[in-house]
Amino acid sequence: MRINEDEFYTVRGYALLSQGNPLTPSLEDYLEMICRLTQSKSFVRLSDLARALNVQPPSANKMVQKLAELGYIDYEKYGLIKPTKSGQELGRYFIERHEIIERFFQLIGVTENLLEQTEKIEHSINEQTLKKIKCLVEYLQVAQPELIEE
Amino acid sequence: MRINEDEFYTVRGYALLSQGNPLTPSLEDYLEMICRLTQSKSFVRLSDLARALNVQPPSANKMVQKLAELGYIDYEKYGLIKPTKSGQELGRYFIERHEIIERFFQLIGVTENLLEQTEKIEHSINEQTLKKIKCLVEYLQVAQPELIEE
Repeated sequence: MRINEDEFYTVRGYALLSQGNPLTPSLEDYLEMICRLTQSKSFVRLSDLARALNVQPPSANKMVQKLAELGYIDYEKYGLIKPTKSGQELGRYFIERHEIIERFFQLIGVTENLLEQTEKIEHSINEQTLKKIKCLVEYLQVAQPELIEE
Repeated sequence: MRINEDEFYTVRGYALLSQGNPLTPSLEDYLEMICRLTQSKSFVRLSDLARALNVQPPSANKMVQKLAELGYIDYEKYGLIKPTKSGQELGRYFIERHEIIERFFQLIGVTENLLEQTEKIEHSINEQTLKKIKCLVEYLQVAQPELIEE
């Protein structure tokens, strides 16, 4: 089974990560959400980000400042948040990582705390493991999924 | 796809867990190792446990005291460590959880940091997810594994 590198957004994201990823799981979640919220427009407001993450704006403010220091977003205090190019690439990697793992769990029939299970493990999955799970997902989607979904 | 409950040691282990698992990932690793080391004899010495976990005996002593307070092992300071019945059941669950996840990663072709990947995610996998991964492992072992192993 082979993967299509062009479609595998994680490659570039992983290259960024392997330069030394200074992001905690929580910062990864912030960057992932910022990139989700800026998929259809170029920026997101701090208040909207805080709401999406179920946190208070002052907490979100601290994390966003940290992401700005790391060069992943452009941000002025209580202003607009906009991912930089590297922030966008890394955020896309996090979004795809989340989707692959969630889809994998769905395909094998996980129903209890699906989102929680995904969020708990996604931060620990390395690039190779993610690629292998992506291959498996593609395989399960076409090959006898009923055996798995039962 | 169905699982054989008799063979699925995790059921009883999970019942213990769902009574409220007070174990940190590190304590889970200790109990897992104690149960591994007492598979062929009834007790393990603190020094042997510490060596197996690559920690200093005083660190191991603290953790082992904690497991004793929780009723999972019988232990006297710097004496012999022996899992209780519930400790043994829970330890077996941890050992099986580890083996299922490691086998899963092997089957899909994970080669980089296989042990690290297993250890990082095993503590976050809940009972249902583990059962589904176990089913998948059984399926992959007989059904076209070459498609996955590539």
